[in-house]
Amino acid sequence: MLSVAASRLGFKTVIFEPGGDCPASHVANYHHKADYDDEAALKAFAQAADVITYEFENIPTSALDIVEAITPVRPGRTALRVSQDRLTEKAFLADLGLAVAPYAAVDDEIDLTEAVAEIGTPAILKTRRFGYDGKGQARLKGPEDIAQAFADMNGAPAILEGFVKFDYEVSVIGARGLNGDFASFTPGENVHKDGILDTTTVPSRLSVQAMHEAQGMAARILEKLDYVGVMGVELFVTKQGLVVNEIAPRVHNSGHWTQNGCAIDQFEQHIRAVAGWPLGDGTHHTNVVMTNLIGDDVSKVPDLAQDSANAIHLYGKSEVKAGRKMGHVNRVTGPAG
Amino acid sequence: MLSVAASRLGFKTVIFEPGGDCPASHVANYHHKADYDDEAALKAFAQAADVITYEFENIPTSALDIVEAITPVRPGRTALRVSQDRLTEKAFLADLGLAVAPYAAVDDEIDLTEAVAEIGTPAILKTRRFGYDGKGQARLKGPEDIAQAFADMNGAPAILEGFVKFDYEVSVIGARGLNGDFASFTPGENVHKDGILDTTTVPSRLSVQAMHEAQGMAARILEKLDYVGVMGVELFVTKQGLVVNEIAPRVHNSGHWTQNGCAIDQFEQHIRAVAGWPLGDGTHHTNVVMTNLIGDDVSKVPDLAQDSANAIHLYGKSEVKAGRKMGHVNRVTGPAG
Repeated sequence: MLSVAASRLGFKTVIFEPGGDCPASHVANYHHKADYDDEAALKAFAQAADVITYEFENIPTSALDIVEAITPVRPGRTALRVSQDRLTEKAFLADLGLAVAPYAAVDDEIDLTEAVAEIGTPAILKTRRFGYDGKGQARLKGPEDIAQAFADMNGAPAILEGFVKFDYEVSVIGARGLNGDFASFTPGENVHKDGILDTTTVPSRLSVQAMHEAQGMAARILEKLDYVGVMGVELFVTKQGLVVNEIAPRVHNSGHWTQNGCAIDQFEQHIRAVAGWPLGDGTHHTNVVMTNLIGDDVSKVPDLAQDSANAIHLYGKSEVKAGRKMGHVNRVTGPAG
Repeated sequence: MLSVAASRLGFKTVIFEPGGDCPASHVANYHHKADYDDEAALKAFAQAADVITYEFENIPTSALDIVEAITPVRPGRTALRVSQDRLTEKAFLADLGLAVAPYAAVDDEIDLTEAVAEIGTPAILKTRRFGYDGKGQARLKGPEDIAQAFADMNGAPAILEGFVKFDYEVSVIGARGLNGDFASFTPGENVHKDGILDTTTVPSRLSVQAMHEAQGMAARILEKLDYVGVMGVELFVTKQGLVVNEIAPRVHNSGHWTQNGCAIDQFEQHIRAVAGWPLGDGTHHTNVVMTNLIGDDVSKVPDLAQDSANAIHLYGKSEVKAGRKMGHVNRVTGPAG
């Protein structure tokens, strides 16, 4: 979707991706199919590009070192370093004075026992790195779950997070330009199912004041990271105010609705930012409900396609797997405002 | 833009285009760069595809014969045959009982003299084949222009068309599915400059009744041609009613606004039709003004990009030329209705 947005602005795209037949390769000028430790391929890739960006935050540092020596990588390393490690991310957000869930580092079972005593249960144990869509996570209902939860981490450094009692969750899809300008899309309201985003509804139930507060929090995060590009900021809406759940240094699933709600969508916004173009202001012109198509949900497409209000987006993934995001539907529900 | 729409529905695309570095190749899986008389390349192309479509009506018949023997080509040959020849097209429309401009075949200068006597001036002489965007045309203000106009045709078979006194022009972007279903986008109002489309505004000034009449005319044309895909139908709005200007058996420049005004745009509508999917209903959710970026107009892009209401679409053409369509801007002007 980033390649498509880039093509819309007249850019050509070159993809680096170890897997063959990846969705981006279907809509790009060239696909370097090589491993992240293939130095020659990384250099050829970097030399072919004027600017490099990514949509996956777990790129090995060594690969980034090689390409970054040749061509600018945006967003930069700070944001990646912070968001690749849940513990670093939480500390960063707390240092900014933003509310986060109570948390503690867990390197061994003793740490976990102490953390449970401090934070209480229910709580959730997560690997510090490489988790997404509910993977690398274990829930603790009480102290009796400590041993199993710790075992689930397979020895990886972890973080225990307390549960936040929230009314609902919203996402702010923020963007910061090369010149430091900030813009944010209208916040959307997220519903998760089995740890995976199910729907995002725009607009959310946020009051205008809370919406501005949420957007201001995103602005502070991006500014502090000297960020260039689009970032997803997930916020819990609680009786005590907004609590940052997590940040993702990339276009975000909860911003997919922008494809049918805005003149400039999150993908184009990201390309504009990394290419040094002016940003769109992020105001939606149309209300949208985005629903993910996970695994077998793709079998609903023939029915969904019967309704003209449904904009269907399929990713061209070659295989359907349980829990795999196969596409999404943006349902246009009426004019904004 | 067709490749991008296809990718959105999860399809992969293969392009056949004699030129190198063509815009479609930037967003396609594979580009067969070969001439239209390269039989082996045509066969390899056809074998790689489940269905073939086109966005250019002057494909040599011999090339179509080769690919059609292997893979279905949609829209089919009838529509191409009719629209490749302005004389055949006019006769087809008149036979359907639709109003067209007065016309006469012109094979030599005597024909032209007789046609001018019959139709009067001002009139316009056009080559029967291969003309577009004002190319292959000569205007006659009076009988004194006959010799020059005839010379301008370079001996090509031509057609003289009388001028139609019209208030404005509209386009109906119609679509017909594999199952015979018809759908039409909200008609847009066109303004031309120097023989090239300048802007399309949606909605047009058409009354609801005239809009339905225009859509009904398009439905009859597509039905009669047993058409599958999207077709552009240009209509003059006159005091005496609607007059068909011309038809184009493909996605049409005057339908580019649909990218930002509809959940399902004309490009996806065309892909849906040729792939046998259900059609979108064509109702717009957002008002749009589309403006073409011709030649040096691309230098306005940095300014246009400052305004978030402007959705910019650039085609990635490698060279700017006077009169060349380099892109377009869809300006979102408010909610429909």
